[in-house]
This record gives sequence, C-alpha cells and structure tokens, in this order.
Amino acid sequence: MEKVYLDNAATTRIDPDVLEAMMPYFTDHFGNPSSIHVYGRETKAAIERARKVIAKLLNASVGEIFFTSGGTETANLVLQCAVRDYKLKHIITTKIEHHCVLHPIDALVEQGLVEAHYLDLNDKGEPDLDQLDKLLSKFGSETLVALMHGNNEIGDLLDIDRVGDICEAHGAKFFSDTVQTMAHFPIDLQKTKVHYLSGSAHKFHGPKGVGFAYISSDHMLKPLLHGGAQERNMRSGTENIYGIVGLAKAMELAHEHMEEHQAYISDLKSYMHDELKLAIPGVTVNGNYGENSLYTVLNMAFPKNDNSDFLIYNLDMANIAASAGSACTSGSDQGSHVLNELPIEEGITSVRFSFSRMNTKAEIDYVVNSLKQFFA
Amino acid sequence: MEKVYLDNAATTRIDPDVLEAMMPYFTDHFGNPSSIHVYGRETKAAIERARKVIAKLLNASVGEIFFTSGGTETANLVLQCAVRDYKLKHIITTKIEHHCVLHPIDALVEQGLVEAHYLDLNDKGEPDLDQLDKLLSKFGSETLVALMHGNNEIGDLLDIDRVGDICEAHGAKFFSDTVQTMAHFPIDLQKTKVHYLSGSAHKFHGPKGVGFAYISSDHMLKPLLHGGAQERNMRSGTENIYGIVGLAKAMELAHEHMEEHQAYISDLKSYMHDELKLAIPGVTVNGNYGENSLYTVLNMAFPKNDNSDFLIYNLDMANIAASAGSACTSGSDQGSHVLNELPIEEGITSVRFSFSRMNTKAEIDYVVNSLKQFFA
Repeated sequence: MEKVYLDNAATTRIDPDVLEAMMPYFTDHFGNPSSIHVYGRETKAAIERARKVIAKLLNASVGEIFFTSGGTETANLVLQCAVRDYKLKHIITTKIEHHCVLHPIDALVEQGLVEAHYLDLNDKGEPDLDQLDKLLSKFGSETLVALMHGNNEIGDLLDIDRVGDICEAHGAKFFSDTVQTMAHFPIDLQKTKVHYLSGSAHKFHGPKGVGFAYISSDHMLKPLLHGGAQERNMRSGTENIYGIVGLAKAMELAHEHMEEHQAYISDLKSYMHDELKLAIPGVTVNGNYGENSLYTVLNMAFPKNDNSDFLIYNLDMANIAASAGSACTSGSDQGSHVLNELPIEEGITSVRFSFSRMNTKAEIDYVVNSLKQFFA
Repeated sequence: MEKVYLDNAATTRIDPDVLEAMMPYFTDHFGNPSSIHVYGRETKAAIERARKVIAKLLNASVGEIFFTSGGTETANLVLQCAVRDYKLKHIITTKIEHHCVLHPIDALVEQGLVEAHYLDLNDKGEPDLDQLDKLLSKFGSETLVALMHGNNEIGDLLDIDRVGDICEAHGAKFFSDTVQTMAHFPIDLQKTKVHYLSGSAHKFHGPKGVGFAYISSDHMLKPLLHGGAQERNMRSGTENIYGIVGLAKAMELAHEHMEEHQAYISDLKSYMHDELKLAIPGVTVNGNYGENSLYTVLNMAFPKNDNSDFLIYNLDMANIAASAGSACTSGSDQGSHVLNELPIEEGITSVRFSFSRMNTKAEIDYVVNSLKQFFA
C-alpha cells in the first residue's frame, strides 16, 4: 500500500472533473468579473451561474448565497456581523464547536460585546437542547445560537430542525457551521429554520480558499470586508473565479451522487469500525456512532500500550494519514479541545479516521492490519 | 485583431509558468497544511517556501508576510485592526484611494472610532505632503496614514520614502496600498519606512483570490479572522495552497525580469500616448505622465463628440477591453470617484488603458486606429 489518506474531514482530494471545470478560467476567461467589457462579462456570468447552482441545491434564493474565502471567513462574518448589526448580547454555543466559531466568540467576549453560554454535553458530546430552550426563554431575541451541524472531530450530528424550531420560538438567530455536512447531506432551507450556514469547497472535493455563506434574506448582515462592492456589497474583493466555479461543480457532483456516496462511505466506516473491534480488544468509539453521526468520520479510542502514545506518528510512518483532532490544531500540543470535553480516560489515545468516496476497503484492511500490529 | 486586452490594472492573465507551478497542488499534494502527516507536511513546506520567496524579494523577514485572500482583505485587516489594536483616533488619506481603503475607513468613521482627514490634491492628483506633515504635528502617534503607492486609475506614483520619513518623524503608522506597484517596482523594506503593505497576485499574472499583507514586526496586529490559528494566528482558515504557490511564483518571475518588463511596457505606454496625441487632437492625460506614474497605466481624456459618451462600449464592440475607472465600480453609474477629484471638464470621457508584458505594439495600433475612427 503506497499511501492511505483517511483524513478527509481535514481536506479532500480535488475531483478531476472539478479541476477540469476550473481550468478554462485559468487559461481563457480571466477577466475581472466587475469589468463591463466582454472579459468581465464572461467571468461575471460564471459566478452567477455558480451562485444559482448552489442556491438551487439548498432551496435558497440566489440573493442569499455569498462567496467567501472559506468556512473560517464565513464563520467570522456571521458571528462578528450578526452581533454588531443586531446588537446581540448573548451567544449560546458549545465547547466543541470548531475554533473558527469558538475563537471569534472569544474575541467578541473579550471586547465586552457579548456574553457566551456553553451548553452542557452528554457522554456522546450531544448538547442539552432543553437547556438551550431555558436559556433562550431568558435571553430571547438578543441571542445568536451557534451550533455546528456535524462535529468535525467526533462526527456527532445535530438535530438542526429541532434547534431551528427552538430558536424560532424565541426569536433567536441561528447559525449552524455546516462545513462538514454541506454537500454530504441534503439541506432544504425552505424546511430547516436556520439563518446562517457556512460551506467550504475543499471539504467535498472542491478547491481550497473558497467557500460561501448562506444568509437568510430576512436576517441580512452588513459586510465584514468593505471595498469594491462585490457580492452585492456583502463581500468585497476581486472574486476567486476558478474557486467559485470549482465550488459549484463540486457541490453539483456531490448532490448528483449523494445517496450512492453516502451508502459507499457508510459501508467503509462500519467496515472499519467492525474490523477494528475484532482486531483490537478494548477499542471504543468517541461520540455518536450510527444514525446520529457523520458517515465520513470515525473517532476511536485505543487502549493504552507502548505504541499508543505515538499512534498518529506510527501511522504516518506506515504511510497512513489520520488525525488526532482537527487539522487546524494538530500541530499544537494542547490535545483536542473536543475530546477534552468528553469523559475519556486520561492517557487514552484517540484517532480520527475520516473517509471519502475515493477510499477503498483494501485501504481499510491495510490500516486495520497496521493498527493490529501496534497493539499485538 | 481578435481581442485586445488593455485592462491589466483590473486583472492580468495568469502566466503559464505560474499555472504550471500551481498544478501539482491541485493533483498530487492536496493535504491540509495544518495536518502533521506527510500530506500536510508537503503543503506546509510549500507555503513556507512561498513566504520565504516573498520576504526575500521585499527584504523583509518571513515573520512579516501573511497570506490573505487578496488586496481587499489585506486593506481591511490593516485598517480595522490597526485602529482597534492601537486605539488610533485619526486616519489621514485621500479621496482617490481604492474603495478597499476608503470604504473600511467610512465604516470606522460611522462606528465613531476614528476621524478621517483627506489631503488636498493638486491638478495631477498628487497629495499635499506639507499638509500631511502639519496634520501629523497635531495628531501624531494616534494616526494611521493610508496613502496608496500607485493609483489604480490615473497611475500617479507616491513618493513613498518621503511619506515614510514624515510618518516616522511623528510616530504615525503608515499603510501603503501597493496592489498596483507590487511586483512592478522594487520595494526594499529595509529602506522604505512603511509598516503595512498589501499585495494581490492577480495584478501581476498570478491567480485571483490570494494576496498577502506585509506587517512590520514592530507594528504587529491582532487578527481580523479568528479560528484555527493558521499564519501564526494572524489569519485563520485552511490555506489557499495553489494560490499561495502561484503568488510566489508570479512574484519571482516578475522580479527576475522586472527591468526588462518595465522597459517593454513603458515603451508601449509612451507609444500609445504619442500615437493618440497624433491621431486625436485635444486628447490629454489625466494624472501624472512619465516618471511619477505607473508604467502600466495611461488614463486619457477624450474630446466630447457624438461617440465619446459611449466610448467604453464602442471599444468593447471593437473587441477592445479598457476601463472607465476601477473595475470594482465600473458596473455602477456613479463615474469614477478618482476622476471626480480632478479638474476635468464636465462631459469629457476618460478611458484607462492599462498594459502588461503580454501586449504588443500591433494591438496598440489597432486600438489607436479604432479610436481615431470614433473621433474622425
């Protein structure tokens, strides 16, 4: 086995069809989309086509989709601008959100603009939604609820419809970080009552450096980045035209084959889970397993032995790419802020395996076999 | 003549060598640079190589270069964060800066955080630097001076060294929008006393959607976008790896051939200027011409006649891409905010022609000949 990539929650390999769709914008169609001459008109048209594709797939209107540089910018835009524009005083969230949500909240708290409230989590990392309801009874419409749809580390899926209903009942604004679920699960914005969503192309075989914000038309924001009035003045800056074209193409491909990919990847995940359970006594799942979890993420806790401390490094030596937590913090020594919130015994090493449609069972066999040797 | 592109100040065609340098990161090396496994290490290394290239070309240290999504994000980062982090009370600028500078300033003024002061301009659009000195005597170190190095519409070049000296004498912070001069003129940051610069790859035959901020180590800022702590915590978000690789390659190519390109493009510009003067009586230059102007930009005022009102459209019909002003606002009907500040007679139509090393004299001949027919 040359190399096995099981870190698809960190980033995915670009689909060759996506790259092919992008290429003409690197070579022939290079105009600034704001230019009124033919070079500009052709790139402008491509951007608006991309916006239409995404809006349609989410059952949103084209005026609700805004291209950004990715999930982090989108989260910052929503959090910073919603608090600023609606003079919100409270944010309700959890300690296991992605840092692109937690750190902007920290900054808003430090500036004295909001108070942050963190929902209790159960053993599986699920937030207490009754507590959410109680807190909202107190804080009501001065509140932004920020709860991710799919947790990037442990894979827990939120009951986004129930949260949407609770928020609506209290007039609160609701932002869901959908970076891990976008283009992996269907989202129908005529049904789900959420006001802000984020998407990042590189999480579903699109290019890096591009994403989008969904901003509900009745909960509009003012911009974070001011300038040349691109994106209907919501996000200035010359558009990443190849990125936007690639994002839409990746989203289109994902939706076209969603059920097929879901079945294939779910099967890989349960195969790996079952094989690991057989191979290594004492191995357990962190977070939810099954229905209420991402079919792309399997986070496993390994029993302590001489090899377990350096499991990620040992896997890397065996040409297997997996992760100890979020890629964004995997260089740091602080461990996973998500796993720290779960009741995991000290000294236990956890590994996140994350799958894509480009993985195979032969790869899983190789990984399980390597792990088995570390725990022999 | 199939099509002539004379709108290189809006955006440039990507250099095939730049695209070639980017391609392996679309196909083979796709890891998240924050991942510690081999996929991540190879993209992380590419980013750090790119940073080193740029730092070296500007004679800066690698810790002073931060990748962003482009010039607009960089300008917003510098303006919003410098005011916030240093509790600045004054911004001194001009009315002819790019909107990515003027609009963030407007937002800061609206929020009651700063007072904005606009320097007087002479007939050529040059700011009054004696007035800058006087204003700084009053406001001193509580001030950010934001003056662009090369004006994107009329091409005026700022005496950036003199402004740097004036700012230093008063302890003021100095941000220069260098989007039009970066990779077109040498910048030596050990000599020029500027604290913040912006660069945008697509202005020098690199990709769109990527740029950088130079932030002087003794005038550091805190981030605008919070999250996963990328870019040494200054700019979170999974890196646009292809973009960053392309940016560095484009910058390298530009510096390698800078004198040769400058001579070639300067020659195109003066050829077009001279031919237009011969062909159309009464045509004049807006802004500076010659030494104190960008060799890439020629902004000409045309005498009023039946065709002149729709000159840009008529040029477009003749397959010639030029601009009435900044691309970012060319869709709007408000005219150019830059030309509005110059003493140009009402009803006069101005056109910005902007050149690159990919243009030819044959193209200039075709454009001049077309224009001549409109004014026959």
